[in-house]
Amino acid sequence: MTVNVLDIAKRRGFFWPSFEIYGSCAGFYTYGPLGALLKLRIEELLRDHYVNKEGCLLIEAPILTPEDPWVASGHVESFTDMNVECTKCGEPHRADHLLEDKTRKTAEGMSLNEIMAAISKHDIKCTKCGGTLGEPYDYNMMFKTYIGPGKNKITGCLRPETAQTTYMPFRRLFEIGRKRLPLGVVQFGKAHRNEISPRQGLVRLREFSQAEVQFFMDPASSGKHPKFGSVKRRKFMVLTKGDQKPGRKPAEMTLEALVKKHTTEWIAYHLATAVQLFERMGIPKKYLRVRQHKDDERSFYSSDTWDVEYMSDTFGKIELVGIAARTDYDLKRHQEFSKQKMQVNLDGKTFIPHVIEVAYGIDRPLYSVMESNVKVDGDRVFFSFPPSVSPYQVAVFPLVRKDGLPKLARDVYDTLNGAGFYALYDEGFIGRLYYRQDEAGTPFGVTVDYDTKKDKAVTLRNRDNQKQVRVKIKDLVEVLRKVMSGQLKFEKAGKLIK
Amino acid sequence: MTVNVLDIAKRRGFFWPSFEIYGSCAGFYTYGPLGALLKLRIEELLRDHYVNKEGCLLIEAPILTPEDPWVASGHVESFTDMNVECTKCGEPHRADHLLEDKTRKTAEGMSLNEIMAAISKHDIKCTKCGGTLGEPYDYNMMFKTYIGPGKNKITGCLRPETAQTTYMPFRRLFEIGRKRLPLGVVQFGKAHRNEISPRQGLVRLREFSQAEVQFFMDPASSGKHPKFGSVKRRKFMVLTKGDQKPGRKPAEMTLEALVKKHTTEWIAYHLATAVQLFERMGIPKKYLRVRQHKDDERSFYSSDTWDVEYMSDTFGKIELVGIAARTDYDLKRHQEFSKQKMQVNLDGKTFIPHVIEVAYGIDRPLYSVMESNVKVDGDRVFFSFPPSVSPYQVAVFPLVRKDGLPKLARDVYDTLNGAGFYALYDEGFIGRLYYRQDEAGTPFGVTVDYDTKKDKAVTLRNRDNQKQVRVKIKDLVEVLRKVMSGQLKFEKAGKLIK
Repeated sequence: MTVNVLDIAKRRGFFWPSFEIYGSCAGFYTYGPLGALLKLRIEELLRDHYVNKEGCLLIEAPILTPEDPWVASGHVESFTDMNVECTKCGEPHRADHLLEDKTRKTAEGMSLNEIMAAISKHDIKCTKCGGTLGEPYDYNMMFKTYIGPGKNKITGCLRPETAQTTYMPFRRLFEIGRKRLPLGVVQFGKAHRNEISPRQGLVRLREFSQAEVQFFMDPASSGKHPKFGSVKRRKFMVLTKGDQKPGRKPAEMTLEALVKKHTTEWIAYHLATAVQLFERMGIPKKYLRVRQHKDDERSFYSSDTWDVEYMSDTFGKIELVGIAARTDYDLKRHQEFSKQKMQVNLDGKTFIPHVIEVAYGIDRPLYSVMESNVKVDGDRVFFSFPPSVSPYQVAVFPLVRKDGLPKLARDVYDTLNGAGFYALYDEGFIGRLYYRQDEAGTPFGVTVDYDTKKDKAVTLRNRDNQKQVRVKIKDLVEVLRKVMSGQLKFEKAGKLIK
Repeated sequence: MTVNVLDIAKRRGFFWPSFEIYGSCAGFYTYGPLGALLKLRIEELLRDHYVNKEGCLLIEAPILTPEDPWVASGHVESFTDMNVECTKCGEPHRADHLLEDKTRKTAEGMSLNEIMAAISKHDIKCTKCGGTLGEPYDYNMMFKTYIGPGKNKITGCLRPETAQTTYMPFRRLFEIGRKRLPLGVVQFGKAHRNEISPRQGLVRLREFSQAEVQFFMDPASSGKHPKFGSVKRRKFMVLTKGDQKPGRKPAEMTLEALVKKHTTEWIAYHLATAVQLFERMGIPKKYLRVRQHKDDERSFYSSDTWDVEYMSDTFGKIELVGIAARTDYDLKRHQEFSKQKMQVNLDGKTFIPHVIEVAYGIDRPLYSVMESNVKVDGDRVFFSFPPSVSPYQVAVFPLVRKDGLPKLARDVYDTLNGAGFYALYDEGFIGRLYYRQDEAGTPFGVTVDYDTKKDKAVTLRNRDNQKQVRVKIKDLVEVLRKVMSGQLKFEKAGKLIK
């Protein structure tokens, strides 16, 4: 039996194409009830790590901004893709993608003129209607609007990344952080890119969610990381920039070896952290690899960039997080364009801090968590989400809708909810309820039955293997806590029923 | 001593005007570290209530949408304010506000022509430069942009409310909710309104956060609310639509009395819930009142609307939440414009559900929580946030930066953090650390000192009265839980020190 994650996602309300009643619009998705909860959990996991464990400051800046910061950052000039439109039907295409699809060779690094010549040479036509293509041109991917009314209105942009909205208030953040470096700042929020022709579900959206962390540092100390020792022996599948000729495969490498030849401790530490966080979200490590950007692929602001990639059955490699040494490029540009000082005085030195950026998407990890956790077990389909990110951690049902069982089950639900679990109450045919929670990826089910009145116990069901144990209601919170944290094996959690 | 909340907010990093280095832009604010956490807590409190207690489905739809839904909803035609620009300096003004400021009388309900005549009659000039004003005109407050490149691009709008993005997928949500009514759906997210001249800090923003709940119901049963009995004796300060002539004051009224004459149980129940949630956020009830919209003030889609208002020292009355009977207006319009069925078949009837909307702002409650909780105690200034929304619940300090105390304090921090408290670790001069946490509104401080090594206990400080008790480290989690939930008086939590 093959399962299509996108079908389940739509049917069970994880996510679906937005504005369906008006014929949809490429690049926009709506999270339904299960998807919105899954997204919330993933964001909470990242926020908890970066705010509580790494000590980052959390901020939230607007999505819509004046144009000035994007002139300074270079986005107004350089944040472009090559667009080519059909002269007959008007369909827009990414010129480089058309060429790559035709020649099966990368178009990376090719100039507009080279692409134009190649399209003409290969006589490439519109893939929609077969019509003749127009001239390719650089197309800026920022959404623009006007802020304010009438004559005094100014141009506004929807931010294409949160990063610049964290850099702008750097001086204020430096003061709030009591003038210490390194200073970590994290921002969760939406960003927008007016993609030419988005077609990969949650992987390429025009509106998407990010969690971008910016570490501001003294360039003299931006190599060594104080916690590197704790991760240096960890191994990852790695593709360095020298490895990426056709036919070369990623090699397993310790971070220690990686740092010796290829990058800094700071970047290596955050690669390790990111992989660990993806694993905690439930993405098995075997689907993840670490890849360095090649010199002709790196963004204009970066001196060294690495991605953690997920190997998708459906979409090929998906970038989940990008870790980039952005140097002092952005702060220097904002200083130049705003005429406001971005340099700091520290330890007798005056300098503009350098930035290491850890830029997570949220939608792509969410999709990857779903794809890598969909399981087929006979005629049963379930998501094997870990309790740390599953939309619900435990579902509570009465065996039947009468004889006071719903009331008893409600009480159990209230207890679990009050104890901080993400709990759900539902009623119906018990088999169908289990089936529904399997597809929702709920790790545990609790059933209140007629015996409950006598033995004050409930049946606890394990989603992954359908085993069931009998647990006293008074022990349920403690048992669930221990089972979820791995301190207690499910089979030892109570009397085994089947 | 008078305190200015906006000054503290800026200095301590709760929030500040965005894009400062580029000269700012009216209507945009950035939440700094304390503000972003406060906002998160407020959102969590609302989400917990509507999702876990009221059983609403959580969804997340895009901010940027095609124009179609806003044509259907009436926003393209009617979502306007009257703008008048100075012919000399170009400054835009709300025409009705200029007139109201001049005449000290309400301009509500006046037509464009009437306002135009009145401005001319009173010879009103530009308040910025004294120049002559141009002709007032209806100005649409939606931000517009283009989605997609080239010839095939379509008009896009930044949503001015989340509501329509919840209505569009109603049919899908109805299926997911297993075809039951009432169906509650809640959405948290940003919305944008291109205000003509926003000038009241967080109260009138061009980009703001909402939490809008839509209850879809059978119109035949949309009056009675099953839980109304539990709140009917509660009393509120109420201004009904008949009460709002000059000089009339709000009257104290039970919900029972309110429902008898003025509105439905459903609206009354949600008014009570909203007031209770604001109280849980720490806004004292004396600052809150319930007000019905007058007939000429109600939005075009509503048959009955009520607000909960906060009485601000600085900004006058602030609408925190609006509760509106939106009838079947929106779904009917979407059915008409999209040609997709919005009607449901239930209990042998075919009908388009009616909607009761509970529309919270987030930024305004956040500001109101700050303003109503700033306290001056001698030369000490603090925010008396309740632990349910305070950015941090407990701060942990070592008395000195040596002799192993930082390590001990870190361990205490890790324990509290691991137990689910919003904890903060900090080092420095102890008096200054307390002062800083008072301004952050952190209810409790924990100090690790030299005695800690011997007695395995710490000093727990109460922000509100500066009393201190000695508590064993092993009891700290339990003690804090009980003190925060009100089960244990602070003075009984350990040996009183001062």
